[in-house]
Amino acid sequence: MAKFVVIGERIHCISPAIKKAMDTKDPAPILKRADEQLKAGATYLDLNIGPAETGGEALMEWGVKLLQENFDNVPIALDTANRKAIEAGIRVYNRSKGKPIVNSADAGDRIGNIDLAADNDAIAIALCSAEGVPGSVEERQGYCMTMLERGLEHGMEAEDLWFDPLFLVIKGMQDKQSEVLETIRWFAEQGFNSTGGLSNVSNGAPKHIRPILDSTMVAMAIQAGLTSAIVNPCDDRLREAIKSADIIKNETLYADSYLEI
Amino acid sequence: MAKFVVIGERIHCISPAIKKAMDTKDPAPILKRADEQLKAGATYLDLNIGPAETGGEALMEWGVKLLQENFDNVPIALDTANRKAIEAGIRVYNRSKGKPIVNSADAGDRIGNIDLAADNDAIAIALCSAEGVPGSVEERQGYCMTMLERGLEHGMEAEDLWFDPLFLVIKGMQDKQSEVLETIRWFAEQGFNSTGGLSNVSNGAPKHIRPILDSTMVAMAIQAGLTSAIVNPCDDRLREAIKSADIIKNETLYADSYLEI
Repeated sequence: MAKFVVIGERIHCISPAIKKAMDTKDPAPILKRADEQLKAGATYLDLNIGPAETGGEALMEWGVKLLQENFDNVPIALDTANRKAIEAGIRVYNRSKGKPIVNSADAGDRIGNIDLAADNDAIAIALCSAEGVPGSVEERQGYCMTMLERGLEHGMEAEDLWFDPLFLVIKGMQDKQSEVLETIRWFAEQGFNSTGGLSNVSNGAPKHIRPILDSTMVAMAIQAGLTSAIVNPCDDRLREAIKSADIIKNETLYADSYLEI
Repeated sequence: MAKFVVIGERIHCISPAIKKAMDTKDPAPILKRADEQLKAGATYLDLNIGPAETGGEALMEWGVKLLQENFDNVPIALDTANRKAIEAGIRVYNRSKGKPIVNSADAGDRIGNIDLAADNDAIAIALCSAEGVPGSVEERQGYCMTMLERGLEHGMEAEDLWFDPLFLVIKGMQDKQSEVLETIRWFAEQGFNSTGGLSNVSNGAPKHIRPILDSTMVAMAIQAGLTSAIVNPCDDRLREAIKSADIIKNETLYADSYLEI
């Protein structure tokens, strides 16, 4: 048991402002978002540079150094489909505040990222999917065990595999939400760490509804045993739900000011 | 599996306005609170007349008829320490929208309220406590089984016992919250219905914090398997969390307008 780990998702090349900052190596927009997320309680920062087929290595190195030099070696999730860029990021990564996270491996084409994490003493986010949406809890369990075995064979500790149940959008896959929660509960029963892109559940919902759905889902998922999520920590309602769940689970001591701490 | 059952707690003699309305048999303040709670999604209305040692029977009869005649036979939880008042309320109760609820029995001095519910084909809220705060999950389980046996001996169906884990205040009993949630999960594993005074968790917390703690707790408790709660349905954040949990559990069909339905 430990406090819920928030991986801040907002340094993502899908944002035009961040894309431009990455293209021009302009620190300011990236540092601003990092600062906001850390103040809002993020433990890890996700650094998503996209496919990054050209220049990915230099960009990841630059991003990792920029964030760690400015924020006391903040731990980072290295997020790209470019394996060499992840390796380049890890080479300049300072581990004093936590291992790097490789984001992400799966049980299909990206299973090699488990080996990459193992070879570099990193954490791997291990998406319980091979291709497309898993059809059942059992299918997710199968992928989980495949990736666990792969990691253990390569010398990883089980705790360094953070299994991702694959959060699904409610609009269109409402009847699959229980499978996701049941998978998380199963992870917890095995003692596994877990994480995932939780706000995917509210994708396509009206803007004022999204924090309501996300904050309810995060409380339910934490109760089921989720140990981390890749989310926007600057979403106040979500942040408040996570902090309150930590209080209810007795992971942080209650004080009337707990939301501000 | 079914939609979460909200028992609206706001017709309670602890409120000076309601106390006065009960003393003077003034319908208006009571009808107003009933209307607000039903519009906010309450299924049952709790009618709490307190100890009601004198005049309790007439008061409960009056209250039950008032609510049911004005709100299409709304189902009611009859809430008083005066057993004769509960019986009087049941005598005038119309069952077309649901059985009356006896609020409440426990495994100590109030165990006779199980018999009362059994004799009147009513639902009993069965508080898993004998005296004081139970010291463990196992103690709660013991009280639960005692009350279940008592109900079954008297011909009740198990589904008419709604077990109450005894929600505890975070300020002072933070380390007991996990026991409450674990007890709820155990209820769910046995297939038992459950309910309780959930907002007790945030007692004494600053006013702006209470809806945050309560809404997080209700989402976690629903995930653990809670099937009902005695709450203020007019607390928007709590109501939104309950409706969202019903969506996530696929108990109501998602629509962009689900919070307004």
